[in-house]
Amino acid sequence: MKFAFHLPVNLLFGNGVIEEIGVRAAAYSRKAVIVTGRGSTKKSGLLDRVLSLLEKAGVESAVYDKVAPNPTTDAISECTALVKAEKAGLVIGLGGGSMMDAAKASAFMAKNSGDLMDYVYGRTVSTEALPIILVPTTCGTGSEGNGFAVITDPKTGDKKSLRGPMIIAKLSIIDPELMKTMPRSVLASVGFDALCHAMEAYISAAATPLTDIMALEGMRLVSENLIPLYRGTGDGEAWENVTWASTLGGMVIGVAGVTAPHGIEHPPSGIRNIQHGRGLAALTPVITDRTIAGIGAGTSARAREKYAVISRCLGGKNEKDCTASIKRFLQEIDLVMTLGEQGIKSEDVDWLAENALKVSAAGIANHPVVFGLEEIKQIYRDAL
Amino acid sequence: MKFAFHLPVNLLFGNGVIEEIGVRAAAYSRKAVIVTGRGSTKKSGLLDRVLSLLEKAGVESAVYDKVAPNPTTDAISECTALVKAEKAGLVIGLGGGSMMDAAKASAFMAKNSGDLMDYVYGRTVSTEALPIILVPTTCGTGSEGNGFAVITDPKTGDKKSLRGPMIIAKLSIIDPELMKTMPRSVLASVGFDALCHAMEAYISAAATPLTDIMALEGMRLVSENLIPLYRGTGDGEAWENVTWASTLGGMVIGVAGVTAPHGIEHPPSGIRNIQHGRGLAALTPVITDRTIAGIGAGTSARAREKYAVISRCLGGKNEKDCTASIKRFLQEIDLVMTLGEQGIKSEDVDWLAENALKVSAAGIANHPVVFGLEEIKQIYRDAL
Repeated sequence: MKFAFHLPVNLLFGNGVIEEIGVRAAAYSRKAVIVTGRGSTKKSGLLDRVLSLLEKAGVESAVYDKVAPNPTTDAISECTALVKAEKAGLVIGLGGGSMMDAAKASAFMAKNSGDLMDYVYGRTVSTEALPIILVPTTCGTGSEGNGFAVITDPKTGDKKSLRGPMIIAKLSIIDPELMKTMPRSVLASVGFDALCHAMEAYISAAATPLTDIMALEGMRLVSENLIPLYRGTGDGEAWENVTWASTLGGMVIGVAGVTAPHGIEHPPSGIRNIQHGRGLAALTPVITDRTIAGIGAGTSARAREKYAVISRCLGGKNEKDCTASIKRFLQEIDLVMTLGEQGIKSEDVDWLAENALKVSAAGIANHPVVFGLEEIKQIYRDAL
Repeated sequence: MKFAFHLPVNLLFGNGVIEEIGVRAAAYSRKAVIVTGRGSTKKSGLLDRVLSLLEKAGVESAVYDKVAPNPTTDAISECTALVKAEKAGLVIGLGGGSMMDAAKASAFMAKNSGDLMDYVYGRTVSTEALPIILVPTTCGTGSEGNGFAVITDPKTGDKKSLRGPMIIAKLSIIDPELMKTMPRSVLASVGFDALCHAMEAYISAAATPLTDIMALEGMRLVSENLIPLYRGTGDGEAWENVTWASTLGGMVIGVAGVTAPHGIEHPPSGIRNIQHGRGLAALTPVITDRTIAGIGAGTSARAREKYAVISRCLGGKNEKDCTASIKRFLQEIDLVMTLGEQGIKSEDVDWLAENALKVSAAGIANHPVVFGLEEIKQIYRDAL
């Protein structure tokens, strides 16, 4: 085995830890911009609570509250302008993955000039960003555990990550109690995303011995706790477990990367603004089936073994029933769906497949079976 | 559960990765001081190999080769003077735990003034240190995976850690092939140290869900691989596994701390220069036995459960045979021994116990049963 491991996260986890945000923020700056969405953190009262905690600690704050799901380069430009105008020394992302990713990208652009997509595509490079504090309110993205910020360019439909240790949060405040206001359908979608992160990092060509044990733990925790929470029978410990699994999922993809399902899901949500977890629900069974059928004998025994482990974690027996195990899990959380139901049409397939190879080359290369253009088209068709 | 996790290590692991040291070092400085011991890295040819790799990459280097086991404040002063005289921008620790710890402490003192022990005791605080690269040649200490540097003050006999993220290596180059030159007796001693790190972090009051899974993996890997290596029947994979377990052990204590065995072992090795792993071999069974007997019913069910897990990992059944499982493991690696055999006398006991409470308060407080002065004296007597 040969591997590298570098993931300088700083996690504070537990019920009620949100109370610490004021004093923790004050350690970085006296002026913060809070990046959040249009609705849920207002309805739940969280935004007001955070504003008051910051004020008590002597941290002035401005709010950028226009982040929508699948945040765009336009939103980042607007938010960055606010961060600069306010001369903020800290960016706080408050909400789901979209809000956290927008916070990360804005903290980055506040210290850099030019076009964000040039940094996303690695045409321009910088290691500078403002300090970031992240507070997740959904348990799926795991953005609080890595240096990724997924951004969509509305001009091209490209949905792709800005990446680097400079956008790893200086502090992630992960409070399981903040998850409890999520609607059930959102919980199902983000919870499945967390499961996918763990599964994909586990089968990734860039997997490491450390991410493997973390991914296994993430899978186990989602597998044992998401369904009771979805049914309304889960307790506080179940919320803690799924929340922690989500952060673990973010951490493992931060080191081992994602594979084909995430790679192939980005184009549909880039052009049709699909909810990421629902896109994954449509694609993951199709891709898993095709992968297991396509794994060569001998050389890829390890990948086959790993699919067997995933299957057993979801109640199956071996790699042969892995797809069925995933489908059964999706059924339990009412997430059996197609891309067609989410607005994707057969005439989109060519663009989607070409775009997948453009925006997700790394994820596709990490997959146990490396799919070419025609195979990716077929995957989209099978998932329609 | 409530916890914090921050461990910004940067690991490069694998057979042959030592070849990268030149280019990696060049990223930090053109001038390095290599901190190593008197013998083994010279005999094995490793020091010459590293010097040549650095030279090829355009990194000038000076060598401080006077570090002995249980490095002293005097050695650190001498080494720091060399680092300053050479105007080195990088300190490379090459060897076992003592050499790595000396490198860390010297990199720290090169950027700070005053008395090292003031920093060790937290009377003076600094977050500055020169960049550090660590290359372990023993698989036990795990110093490459944390921000601890254990230093002995010969004036007082105090053996205690300098601690902080500033002395976490910017890069740890962990090459399992470098372990193969260790004498068998050293392998037994350092391998048991690695096992103790995992066991102690696992039972620590500061344990976290992430350190728990890492500690379990560390225990499993030492338990399955150390004995075959000690017998000479282990293969390359066994070397990789024990080496990785050692780094994991360093990482978990870096977050969750050590408990009573490490805490109580420091005073004997502080005054009698005992090999750390051998001191642990004398003390761990005694402490484990007393702890399990002393765990109260009800409140400490979790600690009891954890000792059962440790016991099963070592071939036992439950917490009741945990001490026997540890003893059996020690027997297999010829490490059944007493403190008396290592030069500790009954008249030392009072000083040892008082010193343990002085230098190891944190470790003793992390233990599932918090021992007072009289109990610690009895532990030393039982281990004589």
